[in-house]
Amino acid sequence: MAVYTDVTADELSEFLSAYDIGELLSYKGIAEGVENSNFLLHTSGGSFILTLYEKRTAVGDLPFFLGLMVHLAANGLSCSQPVKMRDGTTLGMLAGRPAAIIGFLEGVWPRKPNAAHCAGIGKALAKMHLAGRDFPMSRANALSVSGWRPLFTAAASRANDVQPGLREFLASELNYLEGRWPRDLPQGVIHADAFPDNVLFLGEELSGLIDFYFACNDMFAYDVAICLNAWCFEPDHSFNVTKARAFLSAYNRERPMSDAEQAALPLLARGAALRFLLTRLVDLLNVPAGALVQPKDPLEYVRKLRFHQSVKSMADYGVEISGLPA
Amino acid sequence: MAVYTDVTADELSEFLSAYDIGELLSYKGIAEGVENSNFLLHTSGGSFILTLYEKRTAVGDLPFFLGLMVHLAANGLSCSQPVKMRDGTTLGMLAGRPAAIIGFLEGVWPRKPNAAHCAGIGKALAKMHLAGRDFPMSRANALSVSGWRPLFTAAASRANDVQPGLREFLASELNYLEGRWPRDLPQGVIHADAFPDNVLFLGEELSGLIDFYFACNDMFAYDVAICLNAWCFEPDHSFNVTKARAFLSAYNRERPMSDAEQAALPLLARGAALRFLLTRLVDLLNVPAGALVQPKDPLEYVRKLRFHQSVKSMADYGVEISGLPA
Repeated sequence: MAVYTDVTADELSEFLSAYDIGELLSYKGIAEGVENSNFLLHTSGGSFILTLYEKRTAVGDLPFFLGLMVHLAANGLSCSQPVKMRDGTTLGMLAGRPAAIIGFLEGVWPRKPNAAHCAGIGKALAKMHLAGRDFPMSRANALSVSGWRPLFTAAASRANDVQPGLREFLASELNYLEGRWPRDLPQGVIHADAFPDNVLFLGEELSGLIDFYFACNDMFAYDVAICLNAWCFEPDHSFNVTKARAFLSAYNRERPMSDAEQAALPLLARGAALRFLLTRLVDLLNVPAGALVQPKDPLEYVRKLRFHQSVKSMADYGVEISGLPA
Repeated sequence: MAVYTDVTADELSEFLSAYDIGELLSYKGIAEGVENSNFLLHTSGGSFILTLYEKRTAVGDLPFFLGLMVHLAANGLSCSQPVKMRDGTTLGMLAGRPAAIIGFLEGVWPRKPNAAHCAGIGKALAKMHLAGRDFPMSRANALSVSGWRPLFTAAASRANDVQPGLREFLASELNYLEGRWPRDLPQGVIHADAFPDNVLFLGEELSGLIDFYFACNDMFAYDVAICLNAWCFEPDHSFNVTKARAFLSAYNRERPMSDAEQAALPLLARGAALRFLLTRLVDLLNVPAGALVQPKDPLEYVRKLRFHQSVKSMADYGVEISGLPA
């Protein structure tokens, strides 16, 4: 569920008076996203998403997120984009929270992604990496390799309650990755959370990327690794090489990965798996009593991480080093 | 939150193929209602609410609820109404649940109802009572006086943990009401849950009644009593006679209450308060660990009940026995 702050019609009408999108018709709290309060808003001007930014989102980062969406859309990416107020700005205050109105994108997120969906996100992710290249702002990735040890420390004492041996597994993997994490691969703005629920499709056509609230500057290939984990495994957590081939081939057609990026991908995929394993583990161990949010299972990322430990080269992901289908 | 069952786009597209409302564009789980799973659905034909009926809703009652909405809308009431499939029926199956598509009503529910809103629900409630008179189906009210003692029994042993003396207060009130509950007042189909969050407005104009899933056959004046409790008290639970006058006058202009109904209203209002006090108390005492739904406060209904105990006649509600403003 994702409505932490309710809004009165009077407050909302007042807020809307700064925009040129017509009169308030309806707004319904929507059960998507876990960080912020989101409403599906109908006005006489159309459909929109109204987002109230809650405490977990750093206010100082909002100009980066909103500016990025505007920049990416202006550079041709299909993605959610903030609506500008009459004064040209995109960030206001509503019910005591920073708030923005985002253009509504039609489309549905794929609960069971197929190879065509994987090709769609591959192409769109590469387009996003290219479209963001000249974006002037930057934001560090707090959840890259330097952020993992604090998460491990927070979870270590109770990790084995979740799965026997998990603490030792995490410690060993963390040591391995910290010693080998690449520093010199191509960088830029990455989405960092392009899971299926943040990618909308109409049929098999991608209609847009949404939810840029983890976007940051990091290695492009790390974003590829996150998606490889999020899109190319089955519900039983087994790897689907057909989906991986579709995803990686589509990405490479739009933005060819360098040899160094391709060589690093198995390591980056281990890192991406460890990142979601650790954040989910910390969340699971800290679920408050009566929590509104169902914690996600960290252990699916143990399976994914073990798979990547066994990968020798890109060929195991279904593509040759050239980036063309194997 | 109100999404207990998720739906895939493929399932939903298949479900939509029985309707003439176009192609699926998007669907978002919405955080309204606590009994069922609700989605705001956009198709090329417009906006709709998709409802999946969960276990707490008795499947056998669905033809009553859906048929009632169709009947009321056909008789001129502004209310949510089910969309018919090509075969003329309104109830299907989706993701293993009974499911229906309901026309979307623009409008917002008043978080802080004013006197104009109270007049709006007064008029609409009377219109509903009149529009439902020739509806051929019926459904008993399981939450009328005969249903209260089982709720009291379920809550009695722990009632005083919620507020000292609450058990004795409930026992005394229940005895009083059981002995005096009227049997011969005008009856028909009532909404039984016309709280502000089930009544939509555009500005101060009522745009429609929604959520008929507690509708049943009972005394019209009992429905009036429920609304008196739900609309005419302030956030501090003090009675607002201006709102009550607006509500009751508007109701009476549309459907004049008989002398017997007016004389019984204070007693019915005590009963309506006891009904919500008891169900909220049982819910509060049975919140499961990790529950997704925040229980509502039962104690606001203690204050309301005490107020009605002090009422001598309709004049205390702001109207003379004639039904015209005092």
